[in-house]
This record gives sequence, structure tokens and C-alpha cells, in this order.
Amino acid sequence: MHLRLLSLGYGNVGQALVRMLAEKEAELREQYDLTFGYAGIYTRSSGGLVLPDLSPADLGEAGWPYTLEGGSELGPVADILAFIRETPADVVLELTALDPHSGQPATDHIRAALEAGKSVVTANKGPIAYACRELRQLATERGLALRFESTVLDGTPIFDLAEFCLPATRIFGFQGPLNSTSNYVLSRMAVGEPLEQAVRGAQQLGVAEANPAYDLDGWDASVKATVLANVLMGADLQPADVRRDGLGAEAMRAAQARLQPGQTLKQMVEAEEQGGEVAARVYLAPLPSTDVFAHLSGMETGLRLRTDTMGELTLIEGEGGPGQTAFGVVADLVNIARRPNPLPPSLRGKGQ
Amino acid sequence: MHLRLLSLGYGNVGQALVRMLAEKEAELREQYDLTFGYAGIYTRSSGGLVLPDLSPADLGEAGWPYTLEGGSELGPVADILAFIRETPADVVLELTALDPHSGQPATDHIRAALEAGKSVVTANKGPIAYACRELRQLATERGLALRFESTVLDGTPIFDLAEFCLPATRIFGFQGPLNSTSNYVLSRMAVGEPLEQAVRGAQQLGVAEANPAYDLDGWDASVKATVLANVLMGADLQPADVRRDGLGAEAMRAAQARLQPGQTLKQMVEAEEQGGEVAARVYLAPLPSTDVFAHLSGMETGLRLRTDTMGELTLIEGEGGPGQTAFGVVADLVNIARRPNPLPPSLRGKGQ
Repeated sequence: MHLRLLSLGYGNVGQALVRMLAEKEAELREQYDLTFGYAGIYTRSSGGLVLPDLSPADLGEAGWPYTLEGGSELGPVADILAFIRETPADVVLELTALDPHSGQPATDHIRAALEAGKSVVTANKGPIAYACRELRQLATERGLALRFESTVLDGTPIFDLAEFCLPATRIFGFQGPLNSTSNYVLSRMAVGEPLEQAVRGAQQLGVAEANPAYDLDGWDASVKATVLANVLMGADLQPADVRRDGLGAEAMRAAQARLQPGQTLKQMVEAEEQGGEVAARVYLAPLPSTDVFAHLSGMETGLRLRTDTMGELTLIEGEGGPGQTAFGVVADLVNIARRPNPLPPSLRGKGQ
Repeated sequence: MHLRLLSLGYGNVGQALVRMLAEKEAELREQYDLTFGYAGIYTRSSGGLVLPDLSPADLGEAGWPYTLEGGSELGPVADILAFIRETPADVVLELTALDPHSGQPATDHIRAALEAGKSVVTANKGPIAYACRELRQLATERGLALRFESTVLDGTPIFDLAEFCLPATRIFGFQGPLNSTSNYVLSRMAVGEPLEQAVRGAQQLGVAEANPAYDLDGWDASVKATVLANVLMGADLQPADVRRDGLGAEAMRAAQARLQPGQTLKQMVEAEEQGGEVAARVYLAPLPSTDVFAHLSGMETGLRLRTDTMGELTLIEGEGGPGQTAFGVVADLVNIARRPNPLPPSLRGKGQ
């Protein structure tokens, strides 16, 4: 199978994906009979370009900003939705930056792609948090794939684990420190560094955004909690439904000062079933030393699932980054090729 | 799809499986169009019985020892291999007790089943440790499935994770405290309990065998290391190839006495590539408090994979037992139904 890709967004993740597809070209072809070509790229700042089904290796070598031999370059795109519809791609990759308060314009991008008969892989969690049911319903009706492994914990296989490895399993709760910036900042505060300095450190490492409030105030974690609750537990939450208790810079300083010896402060996401409803929250937890999450280093993240078949099952991502996120996109692309049915039995009826 | 099962071994795991298949009957039918019937059961102590494609619910209600209406009971089986060949089953479940020094007679059971055209799910790790290549080759030639998710960390999805969730990924090392008995005994010794008393406690909890040496001396862990190295890393080890350094009761007492403050002693399994070869060992590790494995409770186990795509990825099983092992068998059965091809592309060429 040959899949033609349109990359919406071409930043760190988009470029890491091109490198990974180029590096793994032989394995993907030999093990999955799968090859890729780029039908187009688009960025909000530089514009878009239709490409001649260009191999990842050739696209990677062209560098960025991309320039065709002969001088053709990215140009303004007047109507991005028309660009998505008309670019001859099989799969649209939604890799633009998250707007955690609306999920837009990524949701519109995905809707346009599906309506035009193109499958979608999104690493942008906004659309799955805000429009999971609608978009998955649309994909199902059109017989298309909509995959999103990289929306939580980078490419750590969470949704694929639930779909392929936990058949007939009910997930009735989860918890974990999902926000890297908060993890990093709290780990620096734990050794005496002031919050502002720790935030600057996270920014220098490329972990934190220019505005760290999305992370420290729990919005990023709320969006992740929504995706997890809706997909894994069949909930129908919006990010605003996730309780955010005592978060933010002031609360972090106060909670850090109140810690007992042996405790470690983490920004935790938690969801559980309560009377048939799923309740989710983000909060600062003084973890006891018996909790493995207390011992994650600054850049590590993790998720514990509570299930009826396996009891508790915990996944820890050693260190995240654009490469790990790109890998989740690769896994999604392979699963599109392996399993054209967009909604495997394990997820039918969940989150729909 | 309807799968007829022959259960070799009908102890804690076999009976937990019957209960789980009965409890999950609706989910398995609705989500996977999959139903099960028992074509036979066999135990080394009580003998065998051909069953009339009996539903898990009916078999579970019959209790144990199983008695048919009218008085038909388990009887001596003169030739177990002929019994395996002739029982009209689609899938043979190898759930007999492990012989960690030979993998027999379970390897013969599996070979007979495959030669007779029956797929196999084994929770017994002996055959996969001692005869992985031969048995998988045989399954491939016959177009049959051979699955073994429950051989390591009960049903925690390790092999399914590698197969379905880590496409195009090279696993170049792993480590983890895989032996529950050692974990439990060391956790008790850490709070001052003598080793003998801790072993008795593990036996009373049903974690340790009557002879704890298989666990404490690292044989159980060696067998697991072999399975992991051969399947995940394409090695061709035998359990005797796994180095076992400084293990056993005396070494545990001495290492515990030498621990520095903040360290936790664990029996660890570790494998890595060294010059194109895979080297594996079992050893007593004084883990620093920064290692999450240092904070697993007595009954918890875990495995860290080192990969080229995701970096480090860690799985922790909260609490193992017959129910978790039975779940791994259910997952294998579902994957047989979902994917008749016994060797999906991700594992072709690995461990073959």
C-alpha cells in the first residue's frame, strides 16, 4: 500500500516524522508493504505547497523552508479547507499547534479532510477533546480512519494498547502526571529552584511554551484528560468539564511549601466512574514515596489504568519529544494500512 | 467465529479462564463475533475428558472435579499426545505447570497440537523458552497461530504491545524485576523479616511454589529473560545462556545486609545487545531511590523496554495472579480470531 500524505503543520513534529519515515523506509516496506509520499505541506506562517508525491527521503533532504528545484516555494493559501480537500492525499496529518480553549482550526481541518474522503492522523489533541464523537462518527460513516495515538504522552501506545491489547476490558479509571512542563518545574522546585527560573529552564529545553499558563494552570492536562476519558471510558466530556483544583503558580509554591518529608508534588490527572458518569480532575498531589509516579524524573510522564481484567496497569514514558510524537503518527499510519476499518470492534460503542 | 478449546491443565489459571470467558461472553460475542466451547480438559493428576463443545458458563457451573450429568467423569489418558491430536478442538491451551529445566512435556504437547492442525495459546513459558524457533516455524508452515502473552508478567501486554503498538521499532534492551516471589521476599526482608518467614508468607499467598529455589535462584527469571530476548530482540538463547550472578538465599541475605540507605534490593532481569549478540542476565540489584522499580510493592512486577523509536517505555503490572494470566489467554484467543495469520509482519524475521 502507498499512502500519500498532506502535512498540516511542518514544525518539530512534522520534520521529525519526515526523518523517521525516511529512516524506517526499508522496515515499513518490508514488514508492512507500506510506502509513503508527500502530496503537500502547509504551515500557518509560511503557506502551503502541493508536492509530487515526494518521498520522505527527498523531502527531508530538501530541508526547510522547502524549495523545489526550479524555485517553486511555499505560497499563501487563501482557503485552507479547499487546500485540504483538493490536495491529492490519502491521509491528512493534523500537526498544527494546539488551541486548548477551542480545538480550532484543527477541528475544521479534520472535518474537511474526512468530508473529502481522506483519512486523518492527528497529533493535535484539541479536535479529539472537543469533537471526538462528531469526528469519529463522520469517519465511521465514510469508512475512513481517524487515529490519534500521539495526542497523549506523545507516541506512547495508550489508545493502541486499549484497542489491540486489552480486548473485552473495561477501563474504569486512570491517573497520571501527564504534563511535562509541570513535572519539570515541580522537580526543579523540589530542589530549591524558584518557579520562574524553572519555567525559563523548561522553555530553554523546548518543553514549555512561551506562555506556561496552559501547562501550569492545568489546561493542557484537562484537554488530555478529556481525550482519555472520552476514548478509553466512553465519556462525553468537554475540557471545561474537567475540574481544575488549586493549580497555577501560586498554588504550586504554596503546595510545595506544605509538603511533608518524603512527599513529592506532581500535577496529576485523574478520572473515575461515579454513578455511571465519568468525573475527571487535574490537581496538585503530594505523592507518598510509595507511589512510583513520585519517582519520575522531570521529563518523564506516566499513566495508570484501572481495569476489570488486568487490575492496575501503568505505562511510563522515559522521555518525550518530537521524535516520540512522530513515532505515534507512524504507528497510526501503519495501523491505517493494516486495518482499513477505522473503528475496530474494541472501540465500537465507546466514545461514540 | 466459534473456537473449540482443549485445556491442558485445569488448575487456578484454567478455571479462572473459564470464569472470565463466561463473564465476558456478551462482550466477546458483540465486539468480536467470537464464541467459545470446551472440547476437552486434561490434568496430569486427574486425567482427561472429551466435552461436547461445552460453553464456558456450563463448564464453570459444573465445578471441579468436573462431572457430566449421568456420571461421566475424567478418566486416565494413556497417550496424551494422541488425546491432543484427536480431541476436536481448534485451539489447544497449554496451561500445565512449568518445568523450568526442560520445558517438557509442554513442548511435546504444543508440537502435537500444531502437527494436528490446531492453533495454540500457551501460558506455560517453558516451550517458548526452549523451543521458540522450532514451534513458531511449525506454526507458520501450517498457517496456525501460536500465542503466548501470559508467559511473562501474566497477561500484561508485552508481546502484543511489541506486535501491534510498536511497528518498525527495534528493541535493543530490557530490564525489570520479573519474579514475584523474589520481589515479595525481598520486600519483606527490607522491613526486617527473616528470609525463611518471608518465603512461607509468599507460599501462603500462593505466590511461591513449594520449592522456592526456582524463584530465588533465578531460574524462573532466566526462562522469562529467554522468552523476552528471543521474541522481542530476535535472539536465540536457551535459559542456560542467561547469566545468573550471585543469586539464591545466601546471596540475598548478604546483599540485603550490604544495602546503603535509600537503596532497595530487587532481583532484576536485564538484556542488551553486545556486538550483534544478545546477552541476558539475572542478578540482585541495589536499586537507587531514583529508579521507579525500587518502589514497586512486593507483588508488583515491571519491564522497561529500550527502543529506537520511543526511547524508554516501562510497563508495571499492579498485582498479578491467575485472573491476570487468564486475561492474557483471552487476549491471545481474540487475536487469533482477529488475525488468522499466525505471524504478523511485525514479528516476521524476529526470533525465527
